[in-house]
Amino acid sequence: MTDFVSQREFSIEWAHCDPTGVVFNSRFFEFFDWGTWTLFEAALGVKSPELASVFRIAGIPLVDASARFLAPARFGDVVVHSSKVSEFRRTSFDVEHSLSVRGALAVEGYETRVWTRRDANDAGVVRSEPIPDAVIARFRNTDSA
Amino acid sequence: MTDFVSQREFSIEWAHCDPTGVVFNSRFFEFFDWGTWTLFEAALGVKSPELASVFRIAGIPLVDASARFLAPARFGDVVVHSSKVSEFRRTSFDVEHSLSVRGALAVEGYETRVWTRRDANDAGVVRSEPIPDAVIARFRNTDSA
Amino acid sequence: MTDFVSQREFSIEWAHCDPTGVVFNSRFFEFFDWGTWTLFEAALGVKSPELASVFRIAGIPLVDASARFLAPARFGDVVVHSSKVSEFRRTSFDVEHSLSVRGALAVEGYETRVWTRRDANDAGVVRSEPIPDAVIARFRNTDSA
Amino acid sequence: MTDFVSQREFSIEWAHCDPTGVVFNSRFFEFFDWGTWTLFEAALGVKSPELASVFRIAGIPLVDASARFLAPARFGDVVVHSSKVSEFRRTSFDVEHSLSVRGALAVEGYETRVWTRRDANDAGVVRSEPIPDAVIARFRNTDSA
Repeated sequence: MTDFVSQREFSIEWAHCDPTGVVFNSRFFEFFDWGTWTLFEAALGVKSPELASVFRIAGIPLVDASARFLAPARFGDVVVHSSKVSEFRRTSFDVEHSLSVRGALAVEGYETRVWTRRDANDAGVVRSEPIPDAVIARFRNTDSA
Repeated sequence: MTDFVSQREFSIEWAHCDPTGVVFNSRFFEFFDWGTWTLFEAALGVKSPELASVFRIAGIPLVDASARFLAPARFGDVVVHSSKVSEFRRTSFDVEHSLSVRGALAVEGYETRVWTRRDANDAGVVRSEPIPDAVIARFRNTDSA
Repeated sequence: MTDFVSQREFSIEWAHCDPTGVVFNSRFFEFFDWGTWTLFEAALGVKSPELASVFRIAGIPLVDASARFLAPARFGDVVVHSSKVSEFRRTSFDVEHSLSVRGALAVEGYETRVWTRRDANDAGVVRSEPIPDAVIARFRNTDSA
Repeated sequence: MTDFVSQREFSIEWAHCDPTGVVFNSRFFEFFDWGTWTLFEAALGVKSPELASVFRIAGIPLVDASARFLAPARFGDVVVHSSKVSEFRRTSFDVEHSLSVRGALAVEGYETRVWTRRDANDAGVVRSEPIPDAVIARFRNTDSA
């Protein structure tokens, strides 16, 4: 478990909600993605669109995602979204998201992503790549955003 | 494991894809939802919008969702999406989705949903409800769609 | 032209962008919707989810929408979104949206919406309804948000 | 007005609908985009993802879009979506979309798009380019899809 936690706050919009008046589930996976970019930007001090070029990677594609829906979120609700890396492995890592509404946990999310580079011989192919120690160290920084 | 499998086929659209040119992950959770409605419509012989009124339920809300992304899907790819209920419990059930592109498994999805009714005293509250045996029996029908 | 202008600022997310790396057009119509709710909340001093009950209306459905795309918006861009009502008619009104990136106008949007109430005899039907003078007056207030 | 009309049929999904139970407006702009790709694929006989490489263009970006919402579309509704090019100009063209539900026109859409190539000196810049006569001729073919 790393120490660095990033947080963002946003409001549930009309367009997020389905005919039962609550956020449609797929939107939360958009929110998780936003949370992961926010986390990496905060931990690494690099603007999200520059992450790939600064670290000479192809990106951090998602290989596994899941969510537990504990309580509904509705139009106008203010969501506090906290994200952290729960584990770094050699070439992949897990991100944990918790989204709260009015102080109660509403949704938990989990993503597994891979640190990837383009193949030297075929730019259309991406390969997993060891995550640099310097990157992991930044997530051990206790000065969270 | 129930026997009834439904299948739908659709094409990946431009709007589904992100800047890497592959389907953005949250879209697959939309696809899973479409697959579950397709499955229930096929198994129960009831149009999706009438499911709640025919079975006197509030709906089948999602409490858990996950996906494994094995291979990317791109603009123009034809996806074959198979869905089945992998387990019925007393008031909840699991749906398994597999999405294939050009014969190879691209994405696996899992949903846990709950059979719910409105609370007798508070219409704004939904409660889990035993799944009728007659519903479960329809998923044992081997004449899959 | 009314005087009241509301403004919101937000960042373009990865999930908003298509394979050319720019925001996919339909997202801007989500942004326009968000802008209109923000505008009404600011002008009327009523939380968006309570707008219908406070003003005893069925809602302000959209009957016409358009956009001009002048410059692309990309992942990480900060958008300044200004919204105002450009005209109130008896039962309908026009909202104008302008979205700027780095000080330059990127997208202009126009919505025509209708002030509606539920039919007294058939709750499933909504009818246009004269917009109260008191509502229009709030948009003449020069203390913009 | 060109003669070539393409048509696609699809069902409104749960995820398309907002808390009033009807399709949220931005989804129709996704549908228009799908319709335009379908139209070009049918008229030109080229798979959508290969359109750019076959015609050596950067794409056909949208510069203007609008919609008139005449009747709501709901979960389960079958939509018949017809698309045609209403006008070709030197470097740009207009696409008209009409979406019907149960035989009645529900939504009309209009898109203006530009035929573009990459700048010879700066691949990041796209420029408008005259639309080839051979392309326009294919839309005069009266054997519609």
